[in-house]
Amino acid sequence: MAQKRLSGIFTPHMVPLDDQGRINEAELRRLVDWLIAKGVSGLYPNGSTGEFTRFSFEERKTVVRIVAEQTAGRAAILAGAAEANLKMTLEAAAYYHQLGCDAVAIVAPFYYKLSQDAVYAYFAEIARESPIPLTLYNIPQFANDIANPTIKRLAGECPQIVGIKDSSRDLPRFLNMMHDIRPIRSDFVFLTGCEEMLLPALIMGADGGTIATSGVVPEVVMRLYHLATAHKIEEARAIQYQLLDLIRLIVFGADFPEGVRQAVGLRGFRMGQGRHPLSAAQQLDLNTLARTIQCILNSFGFTDAPPGGCDPNRGAITSTAVEQIVKEVVRRLQG
Amino acid sequence: MAQKRLSGIFTPHMVPLDDQGRINEAELRRLVDWLIAKGVSGLYPNGSTGEFTRFSFEERKTVVRIVAEQTAGRAAILAGAAEANLKMTLEAAAYYHQLGCDAVAIVAPFYYKLSQDAVYAYFAEIARESPIPLTLYNIPQFANDIANPTIKRLAGECPQIVGIKDSSRDLPRFLNMMHDIRPIRSDFVFLTGCEEMLLPALIMGADGGTIATSGVVPEVVMRLYHLATAHKIEEARAIQYQLLDLIRLIVFGADFPEGVRQAVGLRGFRMGQGRHPLSAAQQLDLNTLARTIQCILNSFGFTDAPPGGCDPNRGAITSTAVEQIVKEVVRRLQG
Amino acid sequence: MAQKRLSGIFTPHMVPLDDQGRINEAELRRLVDWLIAKGVSGLYPNGSTGEFTRFSFEERKTVVRIVAEQTAGRAAILAGAAEANLKMTLEAAAYYHQLGCDAVAIVAPFYYKLSQDAVYAYFAEIARESPIPLTLYNIPQFANDIANPTIKRLAGECPQIVGIKDSSRDLPRFLNMMHDIRPIRSDFVFLTGCEEMLLPALIMGADGGTIATSGVVPEVVMRLYHLATAHKIEEARAIQYQLLDLIRLIVFGADFPEGVRQAVGLRGFRMGQGRHPLSAAQQLDLNTLARTIQCILNSFGFTDAPPGGCDPNRGAITSTAVEQIVKEVVRRLQG
Amino acid sequence: MAQKRLSGIFTPHMVPLDDQGRINEAELRRLVDWLIAKGVSGLYPNGSTGEFTRFSFEERKTVVRIVAEQTAGRAAILAGAAEANLKMTLEAAAYYHQLGCDAVAIVAPFYYKLSQDAVYAYFAEIARESPIPLTLYNIPQFANDIANPTIKRLAGECPQIVGIKDSSRDLPRFLNMMHDIRPIRSDFVFLTGCEEMLLPALIMGADGGTIATSGVVPEVVMRLYHLATAHKIEEARAIQYQLLDLIRLIVFGADFPEGVRQAVGLRGFRMGQGRHPLSAAQQLDLNTLARTIQCILNSFGFTDAPPGGCDPNRGAITSTAVEQIVKEVVRRLQG
Repeated sequence: MAQKRLSGIFTPHMVPLDDQGRINEAELRRLVDWLIAKGVSGLYPNGSTGEFTRFSFEERKTVVRIVAEQTAGRAAILAGAAEANLKMTLEAAAYYHQLGCDAVAIVAPFYYKLSQDAVYAYFAEIARESPIPLTLYNIPQFANDIANPTIKRLAGECPQIVGIKDSSRDLPRFLNMMHDIRPIRSDFVFLTGCEEMLLPALIMGADGGTIATSGVVPEVVMRLYHLATAHKIEEARAIQYQLLDLIRLIVFGADFPEGVRQAVGLRGFRMGQGRHPLSAAQQLDLNTLARTIQCILNSFGFTDAPPGGCDPNRGAITSTAVEQIVKEVVRRLQG
Repeated sequence: MAQKRLSGIFTPHMVPLDDQGRINEAELRRLVDWLIAKGVSGLYPNGSTGEFTRFSFEERKTVVRIVAEQTAGRAAILAGAAEANLKMTLEAAAYYHQLGCDAVAIVAPFYYKLSQDAVYAYFAEIARESPIPLTLYNIPQFANDIANPTIKRLAGECPQIVGIKDSSRDLPRFLNMMHDIRPIRSDFVFLTGCEEMLLPALIMGADGGTIATSGVVPEVVMRLYHLATAHKIEEARAIQYQLLDLIRLIVFGADFPEGVRQAVGLRGFRMGQGRHPLSAAQQLDLNTLARTIQCILNSFGFTDAPPGGCDPNRGAITSTAVEQIVKEVVRRLQG
Repeated sequence: MAQKRLSGIFTPHMVPLDDQGRINEAELRRLVDWLIAKGVSGLYPNGSTGEFTRFSFEERKTVVRIVAEQTAGRAAILAGAAEANLKMTLEAAAYYHQLGCDAVAIVAPFYYKLSQDAVYAYFAEIARESPIPLTLYNIPQFANDIANPTIKRLAGECPQIVGIKDSSRDLPRFLNMMHDIRPIRSDFVFLTGCEEMLLPALIMGADGGTIATSGVVPEVVMRLYHLATAHKIEEARAIQYQLLDLIRLIVFGADFPEGVRQAVGLRGFRMGQGRHPLSAAQQLDLNTLARTIQCILNSFGFTDAPPGGCDPNRGAITSTAVEQIVKEVVRRLQG
Repeated sequence: MAQKRLSGIFTPHMVPLDDQGRINEAELRRLVDWLIAKGVSGLYPNGSTGEFTRFSFEERKTVVRIVAEQTAGRAAILAGAAEANLKMTLEAAAYYHQLGCDAVAIVAPFYYKLSQDAVYAYFAEIARESPIPLTLYNIPQFANDIANPTIKRLAGECPQIVGIKDSSRDLPRFLNMMHDIRPIRSDFVFLTGCEEMLLPALIMGADGGTIATSGVVPEVVMRLYHLATAHKIEEARAIQYQLLDLIRLIVFGADFPEGVRQAVGLRGFRMGQGRHPLSAAQQLDLNTLARTIQCILNSFGFTDAPPGGCDPNRGAITSTAVEQIVKEVVRRLQG
């Protein structure tokens, strides 16, 4: 049953902020409505895209409360519940259970480097105490790795752990994980958090994904998902490749998740300024990024082209020109 | 045309050695015949599986000569031609051209860490001088990385570079590579060197792979390949998952490529002792490995079961038992 | 002036917890008194050794309040002030300023991977707003790296940034850092956070260190420091090498900082249970660790030997014996 | 005895090449004479600085033969003897023994990633068969790591292994290594290969170093060495810091070891073109590099200033100016 509720595409959405940098409740509610209207399978507040580490404990609880109230059962909710220590994590889990969330996602401890034995002990203890089903959240780029043998051990021993959201961007690892765990836990849910391999993961048997791009072009990502589950591989593949350009910009084009913020803004939401200060150079980059994102969204038919239009060769020409000029300048200065 | 010849499954085969550690020519010829009879698309001498770095320059040339003579046009040949320096590499390339090989594969320089600019300069220079088409060979685990922008630049500037063999085990990277290069070089060949994601790579549009497992169970890998190209996804998927167990053992189960040597031996070839000394512990591990490989091959129907049979749960029980005993021992010793 | 106050050995102390896992205020005050009595130059609450990420915002403020009150000017205080976002970090900094701390230490943002431009923007913004001098805290093992050019840029532009605590364990980097920054900021304070190279760093001109071992054997570490500053290299060197054994156990012998907790406990403080759950295997390891730490402290003359005494060859024998037995067991099971 | 011969500063020298890229024997002999005249303790042909991987087996033997003949006992010789496989390595070792070299240095196998067990087996086998004493050569940046426990095991079991040359740039590791091995092998020689921490390593008890900079400014490095062994720490420290600028340029300023080649050329040797092709951008960088190296050598009194002189602030101004111009250009292009 958990499996069915936790299948499909979950949107790890951002939190709109007002002029004082506080949670913009009205805009967040509007964003939730929009995502549900576009057909996403579920919402995922307090994910990495949602900048959970930059909010306070109280704010994280507020975000989930607003999302749960506004969703009101119209979509599944997987709520990020990792806190500074076990006691606070369990307090969050209990609250999200009470709010009616379907499950909580718990990232492995970060900052300190832990042995796999310690990672195991951490999740096993949470699983023993949590009133709500939980999914492991593996993102070794940012937090301690949850190695495949640890996941298998937890899946085998803890019925309250019902799935994993894997953002390791490592398909061989993901396939070995499914291959090892399915025989011992047929109900275990496997969600990929790697945008670029959503389709390959689905084809190989994943249950779905938590996909930041689905917060920007939900129509496109849901279309890919439905084509994949209907085994229309070639049409789905065309969309996956088209999405690569967008992923490159919004996930890797600026300090994550600034690109996502810009892109959601272009879909008509007032996201506000992020809480992490940007240097002058970064602000400049974001302007260029916003323009390029707008052109891609325009190619999907979702926004107008920016003033000046979208010449596909523009970027390439610019970059070569800059290189030439820089070399000339360096040569002159070295005179 | 290059594209067609370089499509499909290439076997990076090992080199049988005699009692004195020399190339066993007769057995190598027998191995080539067997692989061709089993239907592999091409042979790939002097690859990483073929331990090219452990042979001398003269030996590497001998290996390719034997393979080319024995193949006699019955399959494509992609010959590893990386040598200590540019002059020797070009000498090897010219010789392999003369022997009738289809292309050479050149790994990026290893040992020294190079800038991408230096990696580019290296391949561009070879491309200018080589009489035979060449494929880049990217294996960042062992050699300098060839980053996507460098591959794109080389593909755009060097017609003699006709493809890439990518062993990075990174599907997002592989997909972005195909997405970037196909619009500017529709003939460029993309081969994956990652055994575990052969099927996903094929589904996403790769031209084939260089797959060590195809040197052990060529019948199985070719079946996966033909199912994939015929879009029979579900049957192909079942084989890919079954192969994971074998890959785990022969690619990751011992210091690579000792597991492959054991496995090819179990198919009836006298592979000899490797040139790298094994410690007592490693020799013990290899015995266990050989037994397990035999059981997997037995499950595919290729060999008899080992004496004592193949109880599927045997491994698992053993490992738990060992753990119990070790803990008991430690406890007693600490007493 | 800041330089003088921030020189010497700072103790990144742990926080004693009571049976309910709450801050044990009385024991923390007793620990502060003991460290000051032993002569450490300063206290460093909310460091990595102090497990700052496992406490709540309110608890971190409480820890600094207790330490500041109890210290009452008898030693310098460098207070860790990194919080979830800029606003909270500045709130903490203002409070620690009001409590009379000498400076705050701010670790680079962690979890998200940031560009150096973003790291720069973060610290520059804090420096602009902070009422209290701040030191950068570089610990690339756990948090975003603060690269040397970024440190130099911040040192050159921000007078409120008065030093760095570098825990990168990379001496070449540390030397280059001092070499680059001293000409432009003669007052900038360089503290090493790497226990194993305290003496080499001091000899090469560092101003001091933040040294977890000084919370376990303050007498020994302060003696090393005074010998080093008096240029008694050979005596200091003997202590540094002796300390390696202790460092190995308490810093690297268990999931950090569990070894430190055990060791401080052996000096007579009730540290309580850590907030991170320990598996059965880890608890076993900690018992062995506690025994070995006790033997080392005994060799320095600080505690009694554990029951059964301290046979120096004991560990080595045990490990070989275990290996033999395990091999025998494996052989039998494979029979 | 081995210890005495292998102490001090060894120069890992480069090999001058003629116009056809062949070994320039006359110039190599002149280089050997110059280094010996400048007082280096020993010569180290076929090291990483000497680009051993870019020569053929026969060429490597020729290099050592020339060096041994020309040295004629006037300095110690540590000859790099790592070859493609065990048989060739032992052949090289026997030949260098016959030429009168003091010891051979063997780098850990590279390309394939090996377990520590395999690394151990490799060196133990060489130690059993080699007629000449050998030193381990650890350079984990380029080759398989030789972990401290493996080094300790080899030192304990193999009398023919007489020392280690450690280029890991990791002082804590180097100190732990000396601390662990000295009690069981008082004759074991510890040489650092990290230029930047030569002085700290010597102060902490190292026997010497293999230092590429000693091939460029042998007078300066030998002066540092003699000051260090005479415990004149402050004078030695001033030189170490001065050397940092040179190290930065010749070791890290271009794809290694191109910077060393340029710098040796500036001391009056015809080094020829390297065997690895350089891109246009790299050639431009090398021109700038050569100019800066000349200015540093000029500040040590070893060469004339380049045409146009050496304004110390010149570099800084240039780089800021370039940045300004580039930003302006980018802004205009984005117009």
